[in-house]
Amino acid sequence: MREALREAELAAAEGEVPVGAIAVKDGVVCARAHNLVEARHSVSAHAEFEVLRRLEAQLGDWRMTGYTLYVTKEPCMMCTGMLINARFSRIVFGLGDPAGGGCGGAVSLPEMPGILWHPEVTGNVLAEECSRVIRDFFARVRAREKK
Amino acid sequence: MREALREAELAAAEGEVPVGAIAVKDGVVCARAHNLVEARHSVSAHAEFEVLRRLEAQLGDWRMTGYTLYVTKEPCMMCTGMLINARFSRIVFGLGDPAGGGCGGAVSLPEMPGILWHPEVTGNVLAEECSRVIRDFFARVRAREKK
Repeated sequence: MREALREAELAAAEGEVPVGAIAVKDGVVCARAHNLVEARHSVSAHAEFEVLRRLEAQLGDWRMTGYTLYVTKEPCMMCTGMLINARFSRIVFGLGDPAGGGCGGAVSLPEMPGILWHPEVTGNVLAEECSRVIRDFFARVRAREKK
Repeated sequence: MREALREAELAAAEGEVPVGAIAVKDGVVCARAHNLVEARHSVSAHAEFEVLRRLEAQLGDWRMTGYTLYVTKEPCMMCTGMLINARFSRIVFGLGDPAGGGCGGAVSLPEMPGILWHPEVTGNVLAEECSRVIRDFFARVRAREKK
């Protein structure tokens, strides 16, 4: 998660909402990325999708079985749906998101009975650090807007 | 929906699971696309995401308020989450998907209480035609595999 936090800090430095993610398989970090929604003008540029793109480019495949996705904020419903579709084995997140989270915050998509793939989910890992980087970012944005 | 069905037929001709989508604003078709998962080796190449990419490139913005997305099969949870994030005003789908649909099939994400944007949803539009193009595709795949 500390590696994902480093990505979140890169996002903050670029003026993006600071969320970072990495993908790990067999103890090796295979891809790392951060939120790029502003840079790409795209809702699909969440950190999780950016990691997916890097992995898909490496593998030439869309199946991510055996991979764990670490992300500093609970994946939204779009990203959770993607992680299920892509068959990630495990999702580990930092700060929970009761308003929009798809891994137990607003809804728990991996626990839906009908779906064909159920990633294991672990939340609240280094949640305080993951929260602080987001709080600090918005505090700076507000301070700048007041000037 | 007939325009989206035409896109689904293009997908079938390319060996992709035949799902097609279009985006409409003020009665004008602004983008059209079909499923490209096989061609792109990407779970994020569902028809809905391909339409999103085209719209985002046109608009240089991620907000799709005022747009209706027509798609031949009920959007999965990933795509429904994206349509909510991107603030589409309305989702119209053909064939429902009880196993994986995010618009009332497996779960109804637009009706989740906590979320900030609630697109209007209409389902079962030309469902029989939308179903037939998928059934015919898999019948051809199975017939080919038997040879």
